[in-house]
Amino acid sequence: MNPLYDGDFLLTWEHDAATLRAVLETAGALEELAREGRSARVFDTGLGISIFRDNSTRTRYAFRAGCNLLGLMTEELDESTSQIAHGETVRETATMIGFLTEVVGIRDDMFLGEGDRYQREVAAALAASHREGVLMQRPAVINLQSDLDHPTQAMADLLHLTQVFGGLDKLKGKKLAMSWAYSPSYGKPLSVPQGIIALMTRFGMEVVLAHPPGYDLVDDTLAVARRFAGEAGGSFTESDSMEAAFEGADVVYPKSWAPVAVMRERTRILRANEREKLKDLEREALATNAQHKDWECTEALMRRTNGGKALYMHCLPADVTDVSCAAGEVSKAVFEKARLDTYREAGHKPFIIAALVLLTRFADPGAVLARLRSAGRARRG
Amino acid sequence: MNPLYDGDFLLTWEHDAATLRAVLETAGALEELAREGRSARVFDTGLGISIFRDNSTRTRYAFRAGCNLLGLMTEELDESTSQIAHGETVRETATMIGFLTEVVGIRDDMFLGEGDRYQREVAAALAASHREGVLMQRPAVINLQSDLDHPTQAMADLLHLTQVFGGLDKLKGKKLAMSWAYSPSYGKPLSVPQGIIALMTRFGMEVVLAHPPGYDLVDDTLAVARRFAGEAGGSFTESDSMEAAFEGADVVYPKSWAPVAVMRERTRILRANEREKLKDLEREALATNAQHKDWECTEALMRRTNGGKALYMHCLPADVTDVSCAAGEVSKAVFEKARLDTYREAGHKPFIIAALVLLTRFADPGAVLARLRSAGRARRG
Amino acid sequence: MNPLYDGDFLLTWEHDAATLRAVLETAGALEELAREGRSARVFDTGLGISIFRDNSTRTRYAFRAGCNLLGLMTEELDESTSQIAHGETVRETATMIGFLTEVVGIRDDMFLGEGDRYQREVAAALAASHREGVLMQRPAVINLQSDLDHPTQAMADLLHLTQVFGGLDKLKGKKLAMSWAYSPSYGKPLSVPQGIIALMTRFGMEVVLAHPPGYDLVDDTLAVARRFAGEAGGSFTESDSMEAAFEGADVVYPKSWAPVAVMRERTRILRANEREKLKDLEREALATNAQHKDWECTEALMRRTNGGKALYMHCLPADVTDVSCAAGEVSKAVFEKARLDTYREAGHKPFIIAALVLLTRFADPGAVLARLRSAGRARRG
Repeated sequence: MNPLYDGDFLLTWEHDAATLRAVLETAGALEELAREGRSARVFDTGLGISIFRDNSTRTRYAFRAGCNLLGLMTEELDESTSQIAHGETVRETATMIGFLTEVVGIRDDMFLGEGDRYQREVAAALAASHREGVLMQRPAVINLQSDLDHPTQAMADLLHLTQVFGGLDKLKGKKLAMSWAYSPSYGKPLSVPQGIIALMTRFGMEVVLAHPPGYDLVDDTLAVARRFAGEAGGSFTESDSMEAAFEGADVVYPKSWAPVAVMRERTRILRANEREKLKDLEREALATNAQHKDWECTEALMRRTNGGKALYMHCLPADVTDVSCAAGEVSKAVFEKARLDTYREAGHKPFIIAALVLLTRFADPGAVLARLRSAGRARRG
Repeated sequence: MNPLYDGDFLLTWEHDAATLRAVLETAGALEELAREGRSARVFDTGLGISIFRDNSTRTRYAFRAGCNLLGLMTEELDESTSQIAHGETVRETATMIGFLTEVVGIRDDMFLGEGDRYQREVAAALAASHREGVLMQRPAVINLQSDLDHPTQAMADLLHLTQVFGGLDKLKGKKLAMSWAYSPSYGKPLSVPQGIIALMTRFGMEVVLAHPPGYDLVDDTLAVARRFAGEAGGSFTESDSMEAAFEGADVVYPKSWAPVAVMRERTRILRANEREKLKDLEREALATNAQHKDWECTEALMRRTNGGKALYMHCLPADVTDVSCAAGEVSKAVFEKARLDTYREAGHKPFIIAALVLLTRFADPGAVLARLRSAGRARRG
Repeated sequence: MNPLYDGDFLLTWEHDAATLRAVLETAGALEELAREGRSARVFDTGLGISIFRDNSTRTRYAFRAGCNLLGLMTEELDESTSQIAHGETVRETATMIGFLTEVVGIRDDMFLGEGDRYQREVAAALAASHREGVLMQRPAVINLQSDLDHPTQAMADLLHLTQVFGGLDKLKGKKLAMSWAYSPSYGKPLSVPQGIIALMTRFGMEVVLAHPPGYDLVDDTLAVARRFAGEAGGSFTESDSMEAAFEGADVVYPKSWAPVAVMRERTRILRANEREKLKDLEREALATNAQHKDWECTEALMRRTNGGKALYMHCLPADVTDVSCAAGEVSKAVFEKARLDTYREAGHKPFIIAALVLLTRFADPGAVLARLRSAGRARRG
């Protein structure tokens, strides 16, 4: 029985390396089936429910596409047209949308200390209602981005790396620079950089986290990265220089995020409902950001990387200078060169999500995949 | 041919007891299939359309889950992004969303004298368009809550009662107290209490309707309850005391609703578009409500019931004192003890809806169920 | 290989008559399958994505129903809850929602010079991403209404004509009056009249376009109509008299639209973000409209048509005098007589869309249809 069976997928660092490897392999197998035009339908009927507490285009699509690939119909719980404000507890709502549901995907990334807690609350409620015989099955909860991790993104990124470098074992010793970059917006979640450092350190990569002073991440995730680097024989270091981080790098991931202190203050203000202070905070945060406009991924910077041709990664959408803003995370030239690669990177996400559904819902996903391959049923025709 | 075939399901009291029995049995059979992991897919393709003119979490989910269980894809007609305001008649809209549709589920419970009328208008339009050869099939209309009845709720409640008491025939002579309860909100629909008294009187229960003076329901539904009680050899009485109603009760259903006079005035004000008067009405109604804070389902009250352990029922979400509000319909202790039971009660709704779809769309649902059972196709795998 | 395979359907006049004939035949075959209760499911899984930049009831439903008929799950890209405002290019978004998608349906009809351009941008992005190996398949783009054409409407209208008159070849020599009509609203798109004159001239009809002076359409579409009329041996003429246009007509299509100059000015104002001027424009446009209240399709006018019984057509919803407005496009008496016919006309749209999906996704749709017919799998049971 695979260790994900009947469980959830909330943080990559809660799962051992073998489990993550199985996710990659399953996603790869599903990609192969799709490329061959074979059906991966394993559900005759069933529901995938999503809850988005923040805007989303590609993760929302990826969840729907991944569920559909396996035969699930998706529905979004729209909290604005539901009766949830009407005094309903998380425990109750979770059960009410769980009766015939296989998987619940949740994005809740706006408030530090909330998203992950909420996802666990939903998961615990579903588990309890199943234990008590209220639910016939125990729907899996998949984290579609929390305050701590963005595991479907990080796993898609990892799958991309294994395909670019020729295998998971080829990542050992490769240098990855997870760097802060300037953006004309503030308050971007921390989950992507946290997810990247916590995941890529597990496979022996030399991971450098670079950011201007103050742009700290949640402490615990740094500790996780340090521990994994030690265990896997790689390294995890911090730097306050984008140049230094890019030096000799094989992979660069320049991306904006808000300082953890700003996110904490923002959460406090929103809880206290002090609207006026929110504007002040935004003004200050943007002013601080503006001091670091030089944190831009330019061609000059890329020339410092290994052979001048590090793989550029981004979760998209990127703030591209002279395209989507006057000054952003990456220059137009660098982004344009890397653009198709970032699309390929994104293209893995529906399959990572489908793999997570397969692994959480089936005790023996290997047998399921073998059956899909031998059946050779076409996706269309 | 079953009597629901090619028809609608708008009010339980329009159907004879045998028909309702068939709904319960079909829902039970679908639950059994689901519990065994067998597929109940009977539609290769097809649509279930929902129209929600009020917020909803669980009925919306139940409609989608029930449709999906049978293989229908669901879509919601969002009146805010449609062209309906643009001078379109009900007759026309109904036809326009009916071409490849098997079932239309409608919630319209806000205005007295409107919801049921609207549902009938849609049903008549679909029937006419089918008769005229415009529609290839005649989609069924299912009432997902109107001003008069909430039949999928009441039928799920009845299925719950049969499972708790060991059969429909075991309900004869059992005392059910449908009681008003205090809530810090006003304007809650009347459809649940009306649906309960009109349905539970049909199977020989001793039904007591209790509420403070003035919190009347729509007259016609009381007449229906009286008639059914007479026919079934049970009883229907009214009381202005929660204590008296609970005395020796086997089942209690404490739930808030607005006085019919308030709902009528509210409907009048909204039609006349007199916003300012709406606030006055709300203020007055809340003040009146506040005089009845003692109408709370407490442990002391529960001790008056049969053996002190009546079954507590609620359509959810309940206003739970010290949980979702300072003072509500039910004390925290009573609700917590009954909580899982109310979840089980709610869990029947997707299957009741699926049963209604099966019965309205198939002339011989028994044969369909037999085929599903013998085919033994798995829901997943 | 059919010429639509792996392509898009944006403007009817980009395709040759044989291709349009194939669309009609395929739609007719799908209607027949549906009428016989046979399944037309050709996709085991797969997505149809819709983007609506304007309100829609019937086209939205038709897209969903057409996709579902073939087995696709539909999802709508809601631009308000996505991250698109957040600096994302069309090129990127198109790819992000394309990974496992078979078809993208787009309505973008509000701004002259924009809708068609946007649809082409999406199509080009999908084609490029497929060419580069980013997308496994190249989703088809289907125009659900642009500033230039409303091809699923026009093709449904044409299918209706062939069924009413007994075949495509029977349309030769029939007179069709595409006439402006008064409406108490302004700013209605030009795509319907443009689509009608550009399509119906191809099959030898005598098409008259009538409107008050100033209510011009986009020049290019008139040129297209003129060219086709010449090629097909029919005619295309213009008139400033509804009476003259109706004289001896076999088909009348009275429908309101905004003058192209008003639409151009409106687009300019909205781009310049000059809200105040928008109100002035609306006031002026409505005043101009009001001078032409006599452009109403009345019984007196209908008596001028061939035998007094021309076929009345409308894309719905129509502005019906004394029903949806005090004075509108058509009198109550005329509309009521034609009502069921307009419903039948609308009923073809889901099948036209399904036919377009089938033709763009399958190299040999004839073989697919033959297989569906011989398999005889029921849509339900």
